[in-house]
Amino acid sequence: MVHKIIKLAVTDVRFPTSLEQHGSDAMVRSLALRLLEAHLHGNFPTLQHRDPDYSAAYVVISTDVGLRGYGLTFTVGRGTEIVVCAVEALAGLVVGKSLEEIISDFRGFYRLLTSDGQMRWIGPEKGVIHLATAAVLNAVWDLWARAEGKVGCGADPKQIVSCIDFRYITDALTEQEALDILMKAQEGKQQREDQMLKEGYPAYTTSCAWMGYSDQQLKQLCTDALNNGWTKFKMKVGADLEDDIRRCRLIRQMIGPDNTLMIDANQRWDVGEAIAWVSRLAEFRPLWIEEPTSPDDILGHAAISKCHNRVMFKQFLQASALQFVQIDSCRLGSVNENLAVLLMAHKFQVPVCPHAGGVGLCELVQHLILFDYICVSADLNNRMCEYVDHLHEHFTSPAVIRNACYMPPKDPGYSSEMLESSVHTHQYPEGDVWKTLLNK
Amino acid sequence: MVHKIIKLAVTDVRFPTSLEQHGSDAMVRSLALRLLEAHLHGNFPTLQHRDPDYSAAYVVISTDVGLRGYGLTFTVGRGTEIVVCAVEALAGLVVGKSLEEIISDFRGFYRLLTSDGQMRWIGPEKGVIHLATAAVLNAVWDLWARAEGKVGCGADPKQIVSCIDFRYITDALTEQEALDILMKAQEGKQQREDQMLKEGYPAYTTSCAWMGYSDQQLKQLCTDALNNGWTKFKMKVGADLEDDIRRCRLIRQMIGPDNTLMIDANQRWDVGEAIAWVSRLAEFRPLWIEEPTSPDDILGHAAISKCHNRVMFKQFLQASALQFVQIDSCRLGSVNENLAVLLMAHKFQVPVCPHAGGVGLCELVQHLILFDYICVSADLNNRMCEYVDHLHEHFTSPAVIRNACYMPPKDPGYSSEMLESSVHTHQYPEGDVWKTLLNK
Repeated sequence: MVHKIIKLAVTDVRFPTSLEQHGSDAMVRSLALRLLEAHLHGNFPTLQHRDPDYSAAYVVISTDVGLRGYGLTFTVGRGTEIVVCAVEALAGLVVGKSLEEIISDFRGFYRLLTSDGQMRWIGPEKGVIHLATAAVLNAVWDLWARAEGKVGCGADPKQIVSCIDFRYITDALTEQEALDILMKAQEGKQQREDQMLKEGYPAYTTSCAWMGYSDQQLKQLCTDALNNGWTKFKMKVGADLEDDIRRCRLIRQMIGPDNTLMIDANQRWDVGEAIAWVSRLAEFRPLWIEEPTSPDDILGHAAISKCHNRVMFKQFLQASALQFVQIDSCRLGSVNENLAVLLMAHKFQVPVCPHAGGVGLCELVQHLILFDYICVSADLNNRMCEYVDHLHEHFTSPAVIRNACYMPPKDPGYSSEMLESSVHTHQYPEGDVWKTLLNK
Repeated sequence: MVHKIIKLAVTDVRFPTSLEQHGSDAMVRSLALRLLEAHLHGNFPTLQHRDPDYSAAYVVISTDVGLRGYGLTFTVGRGTEIVVCAVEALAGLVVGKSLEEIISDFRGFYRLLTSDGQMRWIGPEKGVIHLATAAVLNAVWDLWARAEGKVGCGADPKQIVSCIDFRYITDALTEQEALDILMKAQEGKQQREDQMLKEGYPAYTTSCAWMGYSDQQLKQLCTDALNNGWTKFKMKVGADLEDDIRRCRLIRQMIGPDNTLMIDANQRWDVGEAIAWVSRLAEFRPLWIEEPTSPDDILGHAAISKCHNRVMFKQFLQASALQFVQIDSCRLGSVNENLAVLLMAHKFQVPVCPHAGGVGLCELVQHLILFDYICVSADLNNRMCEYVDHLHEHFTSPAVIRNACYMPPKDPGYSSEMLESSVHTHQYPEGDVWKTLLNK
């Protein structure tokens, strides 16, 4: 059966999360909050960079036989319309092709999208155009899995390798090495799959300690999380040192000495500043410092960093500049590019701890980390996947957490489909939620 | 006098340069050419990535006193509409401010544009959003120079330093170091200025050897260039090794053993491939190999590379991974960020040889390289600025070349204003040029 793609639709979907300071860190502050403040105070306050409105460029591709694929990339409010514009620019490369044509040369299709002679200039493979590529390819992977009635990506080593563009990384990982890794990991695969179905994949929570939360709120959330079996916690730092010390102390008291604490500075510091700041927080024993400085700064060596493509990850690994690899289902070029990074991480023996949260990142990334455990690394040591307890209710197959573990998804596809009603009401700026907020 | 910015307009301007294979290299092939082929052959041929349509997101900011500032960022066709969308997203941060307010804290204004809490996510400082930032800030610099009746950027060391955002680069260059460099270069400044006015700044030409040119065309262009005093030539390589060898041999024969030859692979190779390929071309003694691999690959060390921001330049310099610094007036965050790179290049004692060509890059970058010589490096050794002889006729103050040197511009501003008629006819897709092409 051939699935010809006849349409690609993209929607600017925004959730006014900033109204409750969910997702607040040292760098973001939202339109929604500023609109509210403007309403309360009668004018627009200065930007404070505190609160994001979790958003997505949401892609639906339709085929002539009725099957659809859903994909998205995560954004934090303003600028989503630019990513939508970029998705529209890529649509012409997708519509008219069949799914079968795409997967028969998925590497070629990946390169078609990322190496279009003219659009390459405005990247390449970074920023807006790469986020758009991720949204489009995520929808293709979802369509593929649905067409085959499978969950997430398949597991045939040769087919997996044929999806990866090795351009610019062959000095770190060749196609043959990738194939060898995958072949070797065939051993014990069934046991690991069974184990995952039973126990799930270990997760950590970032829901307890956003920057904008009050101490009272933070305490309550920690208590609840501990009661629900959470043992690993991440908090946001970087806006004010004394405040960070107080909040680190508080959360360490709440979770006790044996649980795990991670901190995330969201690119707040210069290299020297990061070293000084972090040494003051060392007494709270964070396992890692996430994004202490510019995500472009390999030599400024983050302990853990969200890279924008496989070439950046390659260098961080080659330079021994990160101790944990933090993949992202929506910033990298979909499953294709994440596969390259998972394989490189395995070769360099660095544990993978995916970034998640936002809108849909948990839903998508669980497929990647399960694949990593079952088909690549066969290792759970020092590994865990981020979890944030927001906005899952908008998805048709939301992520399921049990005992602080991701339980493997059961529905065919990439878990990337949103409820139609959610998309409809949160469309920006014409959905009801935004009409109400903007008219206030 | 206060200049309040009351409007920011942006236009998608495209020149169908691909019709004549101007600008063809190993990675681009244009819409215009494909449209023409489609017209000739009755169908759309496969992408070949050969020819760009030189384009720009062209910004005009208007003030309440009638003065205007003009700015642009250079693109190569498809995708320009995405940059236009990004400029529109930034417009709200500019309109309503006065020029005086901006320049009194230019560093703060730069950071406002590059660190907006939500839009930062879709960069930061890279790809589409950074190109848009460049276009907007280029217009602000043009407005500033016009308001003061000056050419290019001023030269007061303290004011210069106040324009630079040192975030993420203080481990390589502090504000004090920058100030010291500029103060020291005050010595001999007048002589260098006079020298430039008399002799101009040395240039090299990329107009003779685009990939799509025939041998006959190449020979004729080399002959003409030699007759016009050119001594330094750059050619495009990377599509086919045997063809490169033949073309390198031909151009080396044409220009003789004493003139300078550079080669540019436009990110075509993997690291190993680059080494193998370039060693075959070594007999033609290229001075540099430009962009052999991914522009993100610091450890894959390009000899010369177009970086997308100051953080990438910093690392290339720290890692001794480039032997020439290739600034770009439209890919970096305008004069502000180029200043940071010029100062770092000086500190690390690496010569600056700017990227130019495209649309308007020569017009803008001449200001930067003159500033570098007069106010920073005081050095012409191993330094030259790229020149490409296309599309200058669309500017109100086109770059002037005499004896293969850039002659200092004389009109107030940043030389970034296009002729209204050129903008009008080349607007995409509604300008006459495109209406005709698209209806064929």
